[in-house]
Amino acid sequence: MNAAFRARWARSFSTSRLRSNRAIVYSQSGNPAEVLSAMTFPKLDPPRPSTVNVKFLLSAVNPADINVIEGVYPAKPQLVQGTGSEGVYIGGNEGLAIVTAVGEGVDSVKPNDWVISTKAQAGTWTAVKNISAEELLKIPNPKGLSEVHGATMTVNPPTAYNMLNEFVDLKPGDWVIQNGANSAVGQAAIQIAAAQGLKTINFVRNRDNIADLVQRLEALGANQVFTYDDLKDREFRKKIAALTGNAEIRLGLNCVGGPETTQMVKLLGNNAHLVSYGAMSKQPLSFPTSLFIFKNLTAHGFWQHGWYQQRSRADREDLMRKLVNLTSQGKLKEPEHKVVVIPTHESDEEATARIRDVFKTAQSHGKKILLKLESSS
Amino acid sequence: MNAAFRARWARSFSTSRLRSNRAIVYSQSGNPAEVLSAMTFPKLDPPRPSTVNVKFLLSAVNPADINVIEGVYPAKPQLVQGTGSEGVYIGGNEGLAIVTAVGEGVDSVKPNDWVISTKAQAGTWTAVKNISAEELLKIPNPKGLSEVHGATMTVNPPTAYNMLNEFVDLKPGDWVIQNGANSAVGQAAIQIAAAQGLKTINFVRNRDNIADLVQRLEALGANQVFTYDDLKDREFRKKIAALTGNAEIRLGLNCVGGPETTQMVKLLGNNAHLVSYGAMSKQPLSFPTSLFIFKNLTAHGFWQHGWYQQRSRADREDLMRKLVNLTSQGKLKEPEHKVVVIPTHESDEEATARIRDVFKTAQSHGKKILLKLESSS
Repeated sequence: MNAAFRARWARSFSTSRLRSNRAIVYSQSGNPAEVLSAMTFPKLDPPRPSTVNVKFLLSAVNPADINVIEGVYPAKPQLVQGTGSEGVYIGGNEGLAIVTAVGEGVDSVKPNDWVISTKAQAGTWTAVKNISAEELLKIPNPKGLSEVHGATMTVNPPTAYNMLNEFVDLKPGDWVIQNGANSAVGQAAIQIAAAQGLKTINFVRNRDNIADLVQRLEALGANQVFTYDDLKDREFRKKIAALTGNAEIRLGLNCVGGPETTQMVKLLGNNAHLVSYGAMSKQPLSFPTSLFIFKNLTAHGFWQHGWYQQRSRADREDLMRKLVNLTSQGKLKEPEHKVVVIPTHESDEEATARIRDVFKTAQSHGKKILLKLESSS
Repeated sequence: MNAAFRARWARSFSTSRLRSNRAIVYSQSGNPAEVLSAMTFPKLDPPRPSTVNVKFLLSAVNPADINVIEGVYPAKPQLVQGTGSEGVYIGGNEGLAIVTAVGEGVDSVKPNDWVISTKAQAGTWTAVKNISAEELLKIPNPKGLSEVHGATMTVNPPTAYNMLNEFVDLKPGDWVIQNGANSAVGQAAIQIAAAQGLKTINFVRNRDNIADLVQRLEALGANQVFTYDDLKDREFRKKIAALTGNAEIRLGLNCVGGPETTQMVKLLGNNAHLVSYGAMSKQPLSFPTSLFIFKNLTAHGFWQHGWYQQRSRADREDLMRKLVNLTSQGKLKEPEHKVVVIPTHESDEEATARIRDVFKTAQSHGKKILLKLESSS
């Protein structure tokens, strides 16, 4: 659509035209509640060879997305042509889409397939999109899968699955310890561990409704739930030893950092591995050197984006198949979530106000926010 | 000398009898300058089957020995029968011995072989000893090897060798970074790295005679030597990038801990490994979590004792052969050292005073102390 046509077209639908191709974009880094806008793009052209047109059903808002928009994340989104003279970035990195049309030479997916993107900074906060077939992964066997499952399948469950399986060769009955256990990754880790016969000791921040949270995590399969306050108790190590029958805990998952993590790491046994995937406390990781030397601790990081980059398509498909299977079997539940719909009849200004409102309180929701950018086409 | 003769001989020298089997022992943990004693034991019996009698030529005093005596080290020495009613511990964990007699069934070593012990807390501060043949490793091809080489071969050079070779697959031309570069391990690492074609960036504490130290380390093969003060300079990373031609440094060796180590770790590239073998600053290791997640840092500890425990005799022999070869080729020099002789004519009281004196200033020598407990037999 050329600029002159677009101007005419915009005038003719000035107050109530339906937005068939809208995305949540930003042109400069900053607070999402200030820099995000809804922007309507021209309708998609038919897909070129090796590409696919998709329509997003639901797109996740993850904490990392906020860091990306703030400009403090190492993976940068790609600039796309905006409707003005400047390029813009489309937000979001995770979402479930349905294939609407495939270009020449594409045989990995077909119309109506459910797909996700494995590209970093995929730009998922959009109603529709043209995507290279290479970066799409078909979600196999969608029976038993909800749109919410699909839209939250790319980032958190794979992170949990890989952390549980790539660092220590655990056997059913082995114990795993983690903090931030009520994060989306933490909840996935509880469920995947339970499905694999592993037992979990889970730490969360103390709070008013702690009993409710403990109950919820136990319902997911958590064997033990404690708060960071419990870690301060000098007798706590004995309690854990009694609980586990003195088993040597060989895997710890961390998304917190700071002193609470140091205390948790001391519960690990010889030859243990600590895998960090986040730093919610914004404090560094700190360890006595003796843990490394005499208990042979190994500390790693995990970044699902890096995993996708290093692995083959077959590996990626295999992982997705495993997660879909767990989900179909009811072993990996939908995360607690809230769907925010951006309807097609809203103007970009109205949609912008709505989306900025979401981000004013995004950090305090306690539920994963899923965007549904409706499309009329 | 037979027993009857020896008794007669001892009587005839009642005030100045020669001590043929003396060891440096302690019966309770504490400051070595207060708890160590020289103790004369009965002469060794001929070796039982599968054991060997050895005479120590030189025994090393390592920093860890002091920690063991202080009671703050995880590997504990074995209690041996003292000359009184109480058991005692023999100090020391490293030393070069010569085989004096072998028991029935021993074919791994023969008289006059140079041997070292691979057992933890071997109790090497002794003139003579009966040792299980299983824990002895023959030092092959002693041509070109000094007693000092042999007496310092078990702990520091293997630590350096294994840290350089077990964690990252380095190629000639690759860079390695380390702190505590003038420690015995650090000096071994410089030389072994140079022998393998690796380049080293070395950090040391600033001091009055820093130019001398830099010169000494460069003479060992250090490519670059800096002080921890240099790390504070904001432009320092650019300097390193210029020096290395922007090479990604993938291995860091640490024996310091604390903020200087955090700063050093930031010089490492993607997929790097940090291996810690000491904590001279007595401060914990502290890292931004982002280094683990986005640069895929892995942090390990290394303890040569653990390595010996996990590896086969063939592995241990292979390692020793490599180190001996490097030494024969002049690529692994004697550490700076000072030999403290405990002569046989001194009484246990005199020897005790001498050894306690050594430990009053042991930490400040800056040279490795080697004990030579003379034996008349």
